[in-house]
Amino acid sequence: MNGAESLVHSLLKSGVEVCFSNPGTSEMHFVAALDRIPGMRCVLGLQENIVTGAADGYWRMAGKPAVTLLHCGPGLANGLANLHNARRARSGIVNCVGDQATYHRPYDAPLTADTEGFARGVSQWVRTTSKAADVGADAAAAVQAARTSPGQVATLILPSDTCWDEGGTVAAALPVPAVPQADPHAIRAAARVLREKKNVLLLLGGSMALTQAAQEAAQRIVAHTGCDILAETSNARFQRGQGRMPLERVPYPVDLAIQRLSKVEHLVLLGSKAPVGFFAYPGKPSKHYPENASITVACRQEQDALAALTALAEELGAPKVAIGSNGEKPEVARGAPSPEGLARTVAALMPEDAIIADESVSYGRGFFPATHAAAPHDWLQITGGAIGCGMPLATGAAIGGGGRRVINLQADGSAMYTLQALWTQAREQLPVTTILLSNRKYQILLGEYQNVGANPGRVAMDMMDLGNPDIAWAKLAQSMGVEAATATTLDQVADLMSQSFARPGPFLIELMI
Amino acid sequence: MNGAESLVHSLLKSGVEVCFSNPGTSEMHFVAALDRIPGMRCVLGLQENIVTGAADGYWRMAGKPAVTLLHCGPGLANGLANLHNARRARSGIVNCVGDQATYHRPYDAPLTADTEGFARGVSQWVRTTSKAADVGADAAAAVQAARTSPGQVATLILPSDTCWDEGGTVAAALPVPAVPQADPHAIRAAARVLREKKNVLLLLGGSMALTQAAQEAAQRIVAHTGCDILAETSNARFQRGQGRMPLERVPYPVDLAIQRLSKVEHLVLLGSKAPVGFFAYPGKPSKHYPENASITVACRQEQDALAALTALAEELGAPKVAIGSNGEKPEVARGAPSPEGLARTVAALMPEDAIIADESVSYGRGFFPATHAAAPHDWLQITGGAIGCGMPLATGAAIGGGGRRVINLQADGSAMYTLQALWTQAREQLPVTTILLSNRKYQILLGEYQNVGANPGRVAMDMMDLGNPDIAWAKLAQSMGVEAATATTLDQVADLMSQSFARPGPFLIELMI
Repeated sequence: MNGAESLVHSLLKSGVEVCFSNPGTSEMHFVAALDRIPGMRCVLGLQENIVTGAADGYWRMAGKPAVTLLHCGPGLANGLANLHNARRARSGIVNCVGDQATYHRPYDAPLTADTEGFARGVSQWVRTTSKAADVGADAAAAVQAARTSPGQVATLILPSDTCWDEGGTVAAALPVPAVPQADPHAIRAAARVLREKKNVLLLLGGSMALTQAAQEAAQRIVAHTGCDILAETSNARFQRGQGRMPLERVPYPVDLAIQRLSKVEHLVLLGSKAPVGFFAYPGKPSKHYPENASITVACRQEQDALAALTALAEELGAPKVAIGSNGEKPEVARGAPSPEGLARTVAALMPEDAIIADESVSYGRGFFPATHAAAPHDWLQITGGAIGCGMPLATGAAIGGGGRRVINLQADGSAMYTLQALWTQAREQLPVTTILLSNRKYQILLGEYQNVGANPGRVAMDMMDLGNPDIAWAKLAQSMGVEAATATTLDQVADLMSQSFARPGPFLIELMI
Repeated sequence: MNGAESLVHSLLKSGVEVCFSNPGTSEMHFVAALDRIPGMRCVLGLQENIVTGAADGYWRMAGKPAVTLLHCGPGLANGLANLHNARRARSGIVNCVGDQATYHRPYDAPLTADTEGFARGVSQWVRTTSKAADVGADAAAAVQAARTSPGQVATLILPSDTCWDEGGTVAAALPVPAVPQADPHAIRAAARVLREKKNVLLLLGGSMALTQAAQEAAQRIVAHTGCDILAETSNARFQRGQGRMPLERVPYPVDLAIQRLSKVEHLVLLGSKAPVGFFAYPGKPSKHYPENASITVACRQEQDALAALTALAEELGAPKVAIGSNGEKPEVARGAPSPEGLARTVAALMPEDAIIADESVSYGRGFFPATHAAAPHDWLQITGGAIGCGMPLATGAAIGGGGRRVINLQADGSAMYTLQALWTQAREQLPVTTILLSNRKYQILLGEYQNVGANPGRVAMDMMDLGNPDIAWAKLAQSMGVEAATATTLDQVADLMSQSFARPGPFLIELMI
């Protein structure tokens, strides 16, 4: 058995079932091994940021790591931005990066690069295998690292001779480390704050704190203590809709965030970090909560948020309460597109257990209030701010979601970074409905520019305007095999959404906003 | 004056005239400064690998650096692959990467990343500015680094407070370090080998060694000594066609390279490296020249290759000779597409001083022999093996080439990595004719796979086949504002090329091969 075969066998034994792939010449032994050994679903992406973003989406829905197959340092580099987002989402991913043979590296051939150096900034675990006999054990260790709570990016660099040499040894799965429990002292300290203090904000962060079960425990705390509650601005996976709390998030815009948090005297962090600005702004504080607010960490990011919330509710003696109705499901909106109208339309039409992949950026800041009363669904956000996340995320979430409908709310500027994901959606016939918000500009930049205190002239507009030429998104999607149509009204969006939901494959609705 | 304004003024003073840009929220002060201060041509790319690849192409043709404007670590990460290629091309580029404010960095906001860490693997020079007063001087130092022979990638990281704070100071241009001269001892040693030994190969590398003037000196040496001569496999800029030597390159495929070099007893390196494999292969040597061949370095990569070749010719007492005719210009080929037929057609029709941006990968390995007799032209290759170079390179070369026609010979698989470059070509109405070689597979991988000794099954083919769905390239180009048409015969290619050359803007010919 060669090293490549031991890799595939070991990954399978460790429970990895999906390989998102963009192989190059140095990975042919892996491709050959994947061809010979059944059991791994291989999904091709035509650029590496599709591959890594899809692995992120897969983890968020499947709760277990996929493997990526990437080609040398530059291939990894192409996927770094979505690995950055994955790291911020606390997603588990195993990257396998093929590289120059150990003995060939000193010759500094053209594709030779500092692969480990590129990997470090996005990975909690990096290893370069040195010989075929180690490949299987290193793969098992990588999966173990990826599955370590709350989820980690593990990058395994495999020189090509480690894959073609004989001597590969299949490794058994290593135990997944138990999710650490919150410190009982921390729970008691948080309970004390919640019981004794006023103007307490319970801030939830991380997928574990935003499941329906976690929200049921949080609801007990809120009902019993009257504390304020919010989720972080960006969340990897947020269970929402009927049966879940009508939770809002810390606002993104700095002034709104500061205003929303202005009365907070005590922050209780549960899987979250104390809210700071996405960026600094001249004359505005980095921290968005009052300087003299106390901070109590009830549960760290890697700790068991459900158990912590339950323990906190018990410690407070909070009785069990049901999460109430979020009201009537909105009706489809009509007429000219607006953020609120679109949100209502999506809420009205989304099937039960839909997955929302949200990279709507500025247009989508107000999508939450109008969707609380939708059918139960999962909402996935861009977590690291590296745009170009939405379409790959939707692709991977569709594979990890086991047939559930994915609705990708997608800004046009961000979409252009990773539009190749559409091709993968077409090839795999994934149930992804993309609502492409075509405003033909980097709207978020225009807002920021005006914050800088200037009106953009010609040169500035040229760097923020995506018109001239306009991008014909429906045509672009069709060119990659995805059915698509253009809508200029919400009526048309509703009609196209209904058509798309009734059919199995991908569909793109180009919405002129 | 704020730091951003001092940046723009200082770059202009250092002779930088073009900014390839993909700004984000933290770069709005730069955008505002570029808007207020005239003199910089700003070119927007919709993904960062377009921006960096264009800067590479610009340097190769203009011989001076452009500046890139990138957004934080992940924005830089998206452009790393083409910076890797630029580093291998020895291109000079100044990257300006906006980043978190100095005082905001400790809060680890979502977009915070190890920007310096990402930069190091592709940059010869990295600096993070710490205050507004330093921005101008740091920019001048970055340009100086970029212009240091043979050309370097310089990355300047600019925390956002260094750009909005007052106290910016305009810096004068720093002197460009003189191109170092080859050691006279090295020239004499090389002359001795060329005079006294048999089976000597003079291997040229780097743009300086491949200009017409350098080839005129090389021709004297070849005519006088009868030595063999080749260029490296991949070259940043290669002056070719009538009036230039009919130079061939070291072949890419390992067996062909070993065979071509099998009789070499003495290697004389002039701006080049001794030839090694792009990758290692089981049972095949890393070095492609005979193990016992002697190696003489006449001129290092950063040294003045023209002066070295001239000195070598003089040292040998080689009389001046003209470069002879390369024969009759080929005629347009007809009928079914073939690599040789396409090369002949391109040679027949290319206008004088055309620029060829070549990412034709496997299809284009034999393009050289049929194009020696074309009109004089510049041929740019992918130098670092990170695919996705061709379309951005063509974009930047068109801007650096001052109106010269660019012909982008472009493989489809590689094109998908950076297809957003088409939009920039449309916006800037650049004279780029793309010949998109649509074979709907990663042909190079199929070849490598068969080298591994296997016939691909379904899973393997799924990772190397770009069909299912086929990509409709003409439609895709049109969706981004580039005129396009499909050709299935060489007659049609010839007709579309002629039409395109008669018009000013970009055009894409989808050639079904």
